[in-house]
Amino acid sequence: MGRVTARQKVVRLSGGRRTERVDTLVVEEPLELRVGGESLMVTMRTPGDDFDLAAGFLVAEGVVTEARDLATMRFCAGTDERGEQTYNLLDLALAPGVAPPTPAARRETTTTSACGICGKTALDDVRTKSAWSVAEDPMRIGAEALAAFPDRLRASQRLFDKTGGLHAAGLFTAEGELLVSREDVGRHNAVDKVVGWALRADLLPLRGTVLMVSGRASFELVQKAVMAGIPALAAVSAPSSLAADLAAESGLTLAGFLRGDTMNVYARADRIAESA
Amino acid sequence: MGRVTARQKVVRLSGGRRTERVDTLVVEEPLELRVGGESLMVTMRTPGDDFDLAAGFLVAEGVVTEARDLATMRFCAGTDERGEQTYNLLDLALAPGVAPPTPAARRETTTTSACGICGKTALDDVRTKSAWSVAEDPMRIGAEALAAFPDRLRASQRLFDKTGGLHAAGLFTAEGELLVSREDVGRHNAVDKVVGWALRADLLPLRGTVLMVSGRASFELVQKAVMAGIPALAAVSAPSSLAADLAAESGLTLAGFLRGDTMNVYARADRIAESA
Repeated sequence: MGRVTARQKVVRLSGGRRTERVDTLVVEEPLELRVGGESLMVTMRTPGDDFDLAAGFLVAEGVVTEARDLATMRFCAGTDERGEQTYNLLDLALAPGVAPPTPAARRETTTTSACGICGKTALDDVRTKSAWSVAEDPMRIGAEALAAFPDRLRASQRLFDKTGGLHAAGLFTAEGELLVSREDVGRHNAVDKVVGWALRADLLPLRGTVLMVSGRASFELVQKAVMAGIPALAAVSAPSSLAADLAAESGLTLAGFLRGDTMNVYARADRIAESA
Repeated sequence: MGRVTARQKVVRLSGGRRTERVDTLVVEEPLELRVGGESLMVTMRTPGDDFDLAAGFLVAEGVVTEARDLATMRFCAGTDERGEQTYNLLDLALAPGVAPPTPAARRETTTTSACGICGKTALDDVRTKSAWSVAEDPMRIGAEALAAFPDRLRASQRLFDKTGGLHAAGLFTAEGELLVSREDVGRHNAVDKVVGWALRADLLPLRGTVLMVSGRASFELVQKAVMAGIPALAAVSAPSSLAADLAAESGLTLAGFLRGDTMNVYARADRIAESA
C-alpha cells in the first residue's frame, strides 16, 4: 500500500527568524478506477483504504448496493520508472447482472429539455437513483450526544495532528458508537471510504446512523449520505443552499456549525432531541 | 445573474434550548460549460463571475493564454420550470486557430505505458502543458508583507461573514496590492475565477504576483498557479506532498500555515526575505 505521509524539509519563518526543519505532509496521489477494464474516474486521494474508496464511489453513483455486487477488486500490477508498484490503478469487476456505470463525465453532462442543468435537475437525479428512502428512518439522537461527535471524530484521526491537511468522515450509531472513520485530502473521498467500508461489510442501507464530516456540507456530501441510506449528516462548518435543499427534499437531518454545545439544524430537526 | 446567498429558516440548538431563526447560506448550483457546443465539464459553484470561472478553467487546461483566444461567451437563454433564466449553462466559442480542449474526463484517464497513473505522470503533464515557466521569475517578497495576506484576503470577502461556507482566493502583487479576490463553495472555482479575471484583462503570465488561498494547497491549486504563470502560492493551511513536489519541480514558491507572523515554506524559500 502507498505511503500516507511524507517527510519533507521546510523553511520556517517566524518573527524574522529563519530555521530549517523536517515536516510531515499528507500524501496526495492520483487513483484511477476502472470497471470491467473501462476507465471510470480519476481522483486525487490519500493512499489507503482504496478498495473502500472505490466501493463507496460506486454506491454514490447508484451502481452497487450490497457487497456481492462487487465480484473482484485488484490493483493492477504495474510499476513506475523506479520499478515500484504504484498502487494507483484499481480494476474492479461487477457481479453478473449488475449494470455498469455511465462514465461520470457523461452522466454529469446530461442536460434537460430546458437549456442547461440546474439545482432542481440535480435534486431529481438523486431521487431517481437512490435505492432507499431515508425520510422514514425513525432514528432519534440527543443534541448532547451529537455535539460530542466532532471531538470524537478528531480523536480518531490518526494523521491530522501530524499533517493538518486532512478531511475526516466518521459514521456513528444513534447510540454514539463510532463504527468507522476515514481521512483523506479530499472530503468526498473520506466519505466514499466510510460508505465503501459499510458496503463491503454489507451494512447498507445505513439506517439509524449519523455521518459526521470535518468540514463543510456540500450538495455532493448530502447526496452520498442519501445514496447510502444514512438519515443524518452533521458538519463542523456550513452547508450550502443546495445541500440544505436536498436534505429537506430527501428527509435527511442536516446539522451544521457543531461548536461546543450549539448547532444549527437545516432539515428534519425533529430527529434531534434537546438535552435537559 | 444568479443569487449568491439564500435565506433559510434553521433550528438552533444551544445548551438545551431550541430556537428558530433565519440564516444565510451560500448558494451552490451546477454550471455546465460548453465549448463550441460540446459539453466540457459541470462544476458545482457559487453563481457569479461565471465568465471568469470558465476562462480560468480553460487557462488551467492549457487551452487559452490570452483574452483574444476567447471569441464569445454567453449564457444559454433557457429557463427553468418556473420560467426563470437558470444562468447555469455557459456556451463559449474559441477564436479561430485555438485548439479545442480534450474533454477533462478523457484527458484524465490517459494512462502511461506503465500500468496506471502516478504522481510523476501528473507532474510531467503540467510541465508539458504550461506555456510559461515560473522558475525564473525574479519576484521577491518580504515575510512580513506575505504574513499580512490572510487577513487582507479575509477582509475582502464579501460573503464569508454571512455564510461561513466559502473558500477565497486573492491575487496580490509583490508590493502588496490586492488585484482581485473571489469566493466560491469550491476552492478550485475561486482560483479559476481569479485567473479568469486576469486572462480577460490580458494580464497573463502573472509574473511578480502571489496567489493567496484560504484553505489547503492541493496539487491542482499548484497546477493552476503554474499554468497562469504565477510564481508564488500561499495557503492558510497545509499543502499535500504532491503539491510540494510540483512546486519544487516547477520553481514555484509554496508557503503554507500562514498564522500570525509564522509560515512554512515548502519550495523556493529564496523568494521570501526575512523581515528585520
